[in-house]
Amino acid sequence: MSSDTVRIVGSGLLGASIGHALQAHGVDVVLADASPAQLRLAIDYGAGRAASESDEPTLIVVAVPPDVTASVVATELERFPDAVVTEVASVKSPILEALTECAADLTRYVGSHPMAGRERGGAIAARADLFTARPWVVCPSPDSTPAAVAAIRALANSVGAFPIEFDAAEHDRAVAYTSHVPQVVSSLLAARLSAADPHELELAGGGVRDTTRIAASDPGLWEQILSANAMHVVPVLDALAADLDRLREALHAPEAGGARRAIAETIRAGNDGVSQLPGKHGVRRRFEQVVVMVDDTAGQLGRLFGDLGELGVNIEDFRMEHSPGAPIGLAELSVIPQAVAGTVEGLQNRGWRIASTTE
Amino acid sequence: MSSDTVRIVGSGLLGASIGHALQAHGVDVVLADASPAQLRLAIDYGAGRAASESDEPTLIVVAVPPDVTASVVATELERFPDAVVTEVASVKSPILEALTECAADLTRYVGSHPMAGRERGGAIAARADLFTARPWVVCPSPDSTPAAVAAIRALANSVGAFPIEFDAAEHDRAVAYTSHVPQVVSSLLAARLSAADPHELELAGGGVRDTTRIAASDPGLWEQILSANAMHVVPVLDALAADLDRLREALHAPEAGGARRAIAETIRAGNDGVSQLPGKHGVRRRFEQVVVMVDDTAGQLGRLFGDLGELGVNIEDFRMEHSPGAPIGLAELSVIPQAVAGTVEGLQNRGWRIASTTE
Repeated sequence: MSSDTVRIVGSGLLGASIGHALQAHGVDVVLADASPAQLRLAIDYGAGRAASESDEPTLIVVAVPPDVTASVVATELERFPDAVVTEVASVKSPILEALTECAADLTRYVGSHPMAGRERGGAIAARADLFTARPWVVCPSPDSTPAAVAAIRALANSVGAFPIEFDAAEHDRAVAYTSHVPQVVSSLLAARLSAADPHELELAGGGVRDTTRIAASDPGLWEQILSANAMHVVPVLDALAADLDRLREALHAPEAGGARRAIAETIRAGNDGVSQLPGKHGVRRRFEQVVVMVDDTAGQLGRLFGDLGELGVNIEDFRMEHSPGAPIGLAELSVIPQAVAGTVEGLQNRGWRIASTTE
Repeated sequence: MSSDTVRIVGSGLLGASIGHALQAHGVDVVLADASPAQLRLAIDYGAGRAASESDEPTLIVVAVPPDVTASVVATELERFPDAVVTEVASVKSPILEALTECAADLTRYVGSHPMAGRERGGAIAARADLFTARPWVVCPSPDSTPAAVAAIRALANSVGAFPIEFDAAEHDRAVAYTSHVPQVVSSLLAARLSAADPHELELAGGGVRDTTRIAASDPGLWEQILSANAMHVVPVLDALAADLDRLREALHAPEAGGARRAIAETIRAGNDGVSQLPGKHGVRRRFEQVVVMVDDTAGQLGRLFGDLGELGVNIEDFRMEHSPGAPIGLAELSVIPQAVAGTVEGLQNRGWRIASTTE
């Protein structure tokens, strides 16, 4: 790819980050943006050089806001009749539909959804390593040539991402389940906390923190994403609302016939659902937890990490929990069952207090 | 407390664990259980000695299933007219109401909610360290004497927990917000995943995992908890359902007047709500994230911990993320803003690849 020119239209966070990452591999990157000020900023920060009339890009990345993505892709496909064009909007079907409607050349179009982002936007926040080790969903159109698909897979690989292939509708259904509906549910749950008394929220533990973590997301961005994928989000929310109504009815009269069963079934259905999520690398493995007490002085967690490193324990997962009113935190280590005894003994020998283990 | 006798009624996980913890401090523990087999098991495991007619307990802990808790507390208050009685049910108002109705001596009753548990139950799973560094909610009745409240606070302290005081209604509202409604929402969300195609769930990332983690909870236990606290759970679920209905209406026609605003407001209300949660030790601090690539060979995370320990970096929080299709994981370290540069440089010098930072 290094002998070719890549044209990036839109020099915000994603466009500029792709520019930085490609240039790090020696690719000639030219940038275009409807806003001259944004373009100048991205160039100043080294994301690429300004596009010119003589450019002959073989690959074009459209990284503009979702509502104008399809029309910009159509324009680029027409203007550069030999180039492969991709775009990075986070919902794919509406783009494909709009391109189909305007009879764009879909043989050279392949959608992308790099699953990476940052809290801050713009060319200033751009980074060459934004995509490192992240999934990059590649969405061929029904007419995309194998060469066009290969070019986009190569693009993903060259910025350090892992390409994973979905068709547009499949992608949009997938993100409805794995991202958009969880966002809605987390936001709705978090919104209720505003009605609680601050003293009551002192009992907040890991459960409410986990379930509301993504509720801190950007309203402007999510208004666009949810609107664009409403077709796939609404049926899931409708089914969830029906389940919620059944549960509320049962809880309104928990002693009525069938009510207790309906409540238990709600929790059981959740057990079944969460077990569908693939584990690490798609393999479901069972880990045990060892909970270690750590106080809040500087370096405590660092010392714990140091000791764990010396013990040679393979930590599969790690979470911190801070209990209300407690001057110390609890560090939850996940290890394979065979490693529990050695971890506990090794840490105790080094003066650590074990709060509990699941074994 | 060590010269007194504590009587524990109910020798399951909580009762037996309290027995183990108190005996470790030299307290004389006597156990009673409606099931002779359960009682024998708890005694065999060393949770205490069998209760006898000559016992003169000063403190009684009732740790029986929620539906019989109030009647057992009433019986104990009558039988031991000088003892302070507590119980450990996870919903408090129904117990207080039942005791008030049967005219029990509320001066000697104080409710408890030790916020600790395990996936497994029974005396076999009991542990002296179950309550270490966990909050223990102390719920005085309106008539509890200061001495009775002090006795229960001392009980919490002596098993290693941190007492935190709430009245019964306040406690039940608090756990509705911080535990019961998050459980319901997580279960409802997770249940929807059963309708997704397994391929679609390959895109599952940190968001859906965080929001559905507690959906793995026990249906039998939660049927009881939700039924017992329906009075406080239902109003929160009703308000959430109303918000959900408004959002669904907006998403059914995202181009209608006011729809986009309604969608954005849903996310913004979630922002406001999640910001109400107290941070570590009640203080909101802002940390930056440094994301490090770790492959899946044994000892990688241990080596990272070792290096961080040697670098003397104070890690405020730590999370692992495993991307679909990626042979490596991403370790997200939270550090104070001033520590980002040193952490990145130190880790890079030791050969670690930094995937990204928020700074």
